[in-house]
Amino acid sequence: MHISNETSSGSCSCSVPGNGLGQNSIPCRKRLPGLSDLGTLKRTLAPITTADLFKPPCYSERPKSGIDISKFLSREGRVRQPSSLKASVAEFGEDMISLGTGRPSPDTYPFERMEFAYSSPNATAWTGQAMSIHGSQGKEGTGIVYKQDPSASIDLSIALSYGYSLGSEQLIQYLTTHVSHVHSPPYSDWEICLTGGNTSAMETAFRNFTDPGDFVLVEEYTYSGMIEAASALGLILVPVAMDADGINADSLDNILSTWNDLHQGNPAPKLLYTIPTGHNPTGITQPLHRRQEILDVAEKHDILILEDDPYYYLHFPQTHGDSDFLSLPSYLALSRTGRVIRLDSTSKILAPGLRLGWLTAPKAIVETFQAAHDLGFVHPSGLSQVAVYKLISETWGHDGFLQWLNVLAGNYRDKASALLQAMERELGWGILADICSWSEIRAGMFIWLKVDCSTLPDMSGTLMDAEARQQALMKIEDKIYMEALKEGVLACKGSPFQTPPLTSTGAINDDGQLSAALGTSLGKENVAVFLRLTFASAEAADLAKAVGRLGIALRNIFTPKSGEATPAISFQ
Amino acid sequence: MHISNETSSGSCSCSVPGNGLGQNSIPCRKRLPGLSDLGTLKRTLAPITTADLFKPPCYSERPKSGIDISKFLSREGRVRQPSSLKASVAEFGEDMISLGTGRPSPDTYPFERMEFAYSSPNATAWTGQAMSIHGSQGKEGTGIVYKQDPSASIDLSIALSYGYSLGSEQLIQYLTTHVSHVHSPPYSDWEICLTGGNTSAMETAFRNFTDPGDFVLVEEYTYSGMIEAASALGLILVPVAMDADGINADSLDNILSTWNDLHQGNPAPKLLYTIPTGHNPTGITQPLHRRQEILDVAEKHDILILEDDPYYYLHFPQTHGDSDFLSLPSYLALSRTGRVIRLDSTSKILAPGLRLGWLTAPKAIVETFQAAHDLGFVHPSGLSQVAVYKLISETWGHDGFLQWLNVLAGNYRDKASALLQAMERELGWGILADICSWSEIRAGMFIWLKVDCSTLPDMSGTLMDAEARQQALMKIEDKIYMEALKEGVLACKGSPFQTPPLTSTGAINDDGQLSAALGTSLGKENVAVFLRLTFASAEAADLAKAVGRLGIALRNIFTPKSGEATPAISFQ
Repeated sequence: MHISNETSSGSCSCSVPGNGLGQNSIPCRKRLPGLSDLGTLKRTLAPITTADLFKPPCYSERPKSGIDISKFLSREGRVRQPSSLKASVAEFGEDMISLGTGRPSPDTYPFERMEFAYSSPNATAWTGQAMSIHGSQGKEGTGIVYKQDPSASIDLSIALSYGYSLGSEQLIQYLTTHVSHVHSPPYSDWEICLTGGNTSAMETAFRNFTDPGDFVLVEEYTYSGMIEAASALGLILVPVAMDADGINADSLDNILSTWNDLHQGNPAPKLLYTIPTGHNPTGITQPLHRRQEILDVAEKHDILILEDDPYYYLHFPQTHGDSDFLSLPSYLALSRTGRVIRLDSTSKILAPGLRLGWLTAPKAIVETFQAAHDLGFVHPSGLSQVAVYKLISETWGHDGFLQWLNVLAGNYRDKASALLQAMERELGWGILADICSWSEIRAGMFIWLKVDCSTLPDMSGTLMDAEARQQALMKIEDKIYMEALKEGVLACKGSPFQTPPLTSTGAINDDGQLSAALGTSLGKENVAVFLRLTFASAEAADLAKAVGRLGIALRNIFTPKSGEATPAISFQ
Repeated sequence: MHISNETSSGSCSCSVPGNGLGQNSIPCRKRLPGLSDLGTLKRTLAPITTADLFKPPCYSERPKSGIDISKFLSREGRVRQPSSLKASVAEFGEDMISLGTGRPSPDTYPFERMEFAYSSPNATAWTGQAMSIHGSQGKEGTGIVYKQDPSASIDLSIALSYGYSLGSEQLIQYLTTHVSHVHSPPYSDWEICLTGGNTSAMETAFRNFTDPGDFVLVEEYTYSGMIEAASALGLILVPVAMDADGINADSLDNILSTWNDLHQGNPAPKLLYTIPTGHNPTGITQPLHRRQEILDVAEKHDILILEDDPYYYLHFPQTHGDSDFLSLPSYLALSRTGRVIRLDSTSKILAPGLRLGWLTAPKAIVETFQAAHDLGFVHPSGLSQVAVYKLISETWGHDGFLQWLNVLAGNYRDKASALLQAMERELGWGILADICSWSEIRAGMFIWLKVDCSTLPDMSGTLMDAEARQQALMKIEDKIYMEALKEGVLACKGSPFQTPPLTSTGAINDDGQLSAALGTSLGKENVAVFLRLTFASAEAADLAKAVGRLGIALRNIFTPKSGEATPAISFQ
């Protein structure tokens, strides 16, 4: 079964993109098929599916990734095999009667019909700004799924049954076209697998590609849930320095180049975890040159990159034209050798309660996730799958989905702008002007507020050793957090996002050479605490109010008490 | 917030059940609250919830389980902590503005409304038999969920957001009443956690309570997915002998009593995995006395029991009155010391595509799952949660759900009966009469067909060593499987369900004493292969046809070819 995504009038002139830069080098982006081009899927329970069935013809002309994953596999990843039971029940002829699997008859599902009413991809209701995009086919609408509906591409008897562990054929088909359009992976053997969101997929990636005791490269500030998950798995995180463009390629290269000298007997890291767009918690978006530099280092040292990119689509649009995320290639789009495992999620672009995401990587890598799903996660909810399929495929279509993403990113841009303006207004004057600093952001939902604590009496001395200073800073951070709560604003402490220094793990007796090798580090040279602020969940009108409260809290702490010689904060 | 499930007219006279036997000792079962008794929940995004809020008052008079889980925890289970990020965003006052979590505003979810049309719990359409149950309040109906609906107990803004990792408050409330009614755990500190189904929960249980290299007790035949998942986790399975009543308590006791003598240096198993009802693959339901015997051994040797019970509700009803599953206490209902982790699933009773189940255990155990969810799985799909809540709570109510389960179990009983009758008819005569054997079943969806191969020429000799015999049997099993496929029927091979013998793992140099200690073993003394047959997925009318085809396949293999001296199967 091969279904062409090409229109009958046009031949596919795709070429491997030169460097993944402009759209000129990725002609497939011009070829978004409408729904009518998707073809008719064979309707079966849990069919075997693969992105190969739905790729445009150009991929047959691209080289394979050539990646050999055997050196990267964990013990668990090596041992795990796809379910033998599932393998034994591949579909046979129509006359076959199955006494095989404990799969209840769909007749016994007590769900007769589901109907979804979807928003318009314009979403004027919540943005207050109608986007007018040329050629948009998206529209508000409803999706109806019946229990038994032989004329539909998917019905409840399929959606509510055990599904295929890569995901439903319908969504894989849609996402193959979408990923091909957005990322145009420069090799032929990429595959897509649905996931339960990026946290779930990240943890599975660690289990497939690391063993307890292994070292994993991460940004020096990173997603706290990843730090905790990695720690639970017995992994030791190696912080890579960051600068204004995100993870620093020289630091990465230094760590890997000096590893064997500095860490004799400890296997070198073979996996880098990074959040390239709207980084959590710093908000940084790695520019193209930085991605290319990192990829060059990964190539040089033969490591895998786990690209956790849930904020990718929240790349703030500068114009009202094409979605801006298309202008910044992902690691997936840049790596010709297939050393990137890319994680996408619906959590920030549709709804987190769906627990639905997808990963894209060479087939050999995806198969390790498929095997892991067979023996544990199984697959995302069939209801989430059908709700999303009916929305982005049958209701919005590809253009409508891109329109939605663009409008959504515009909404985040506006909220970010509101928060930044409020910060300028509330934190940019008086005593806070020298204490608070932050960077502009280009994507995502986070702003990283740095609060310089050197003016606090107890932090001004130079005699404090590193540990005492760290403890003092933790107390100040807690004090700020509590004071903000008292004033009625909840901010996120920065410290849970700090990758523990390698020495604190006790795993390596660091003699200081490593720290030197880490290079310039965000905030390390300063005596500061950080707060992560997000504009995602609060109402737009509340953002200014919230920052005002934060300003009051900070002034309460940083304004010297008149007539007092004692410091504002004391460290008993 | 405490919401009483008691009606205002009745005081709670619950007592700890004597032995969990009759309903007389579990008076709480008489007190199924209607929906109106559930009270109004505080509507918040991802509130902290616990079964304690919803338990009937009797539990305050029951003793705590008293279990100390520290000796059972794996390294991973010990290290893992609930997400610090989630802990930091517990709800505060109404005036609090959150700049804290990267939780998108529900305004941006493109889902305006969902409507579910549900079957009646009578489900006459597919059973062909209307059950008339006194007092049933269940009815066919629809559930509607709007994006913003302050008057509803749950709306899409809640269902589609990040949820609490134990599960939505609404479902936890419903299930607390349900579990209290059905199992009436004999201790006070039980807790409920939603899961992604039993395969997912089973794997998490292994990760929380076993380390790679640990030994886990399992039935000698068991769920093949469990065998594969355990193997991937580096666990070594210890097969416990089975008899007609399921797992054998003497075998279990022998293994544990002789462990230190036979396996010096290897830590004794501390976890037993068992499928007590409608066992997969043998179909056996452990009677009460067997459960009690196993529990006594578990008590004696201080091990945990992982009760994987997806077929529990498919306990065939003998009458048209109360659901028969209430007559057979679960391990959860029997263990006063809380050494049972019980796994329930919606996969066999509502629909597997929901990927939704729940586990019940002492709070200290449930917290290990909650922490695991925080760092990976997160929680089941919010759509699955709201679809099931609207169905079993708001549409059917407790009585309706029990009615549904009873009707469904009756449907399975009838299909089992049809399959067994067909087997009697098709496999019970001629040459197959002495070759095929099987047991009656009382629950679930599986029949375990034993095919005696001793009459096959190459199996009749006594000189064949164990390994050669095993290889010969595997060839015969494959031959039967393929011949059946050729005739148009898919059966499940039995061999993937066989727990590998301990010696084959290479982990223990078994000198034969252990095998002796295992006691009488199902089929070990015979030269036989097994097929697992299920009546779950095929249409009723097809069952007889399928067994007819299987009979032809078996006769093709076992009927001596006339005029041939060569065996029907040769082993080159």
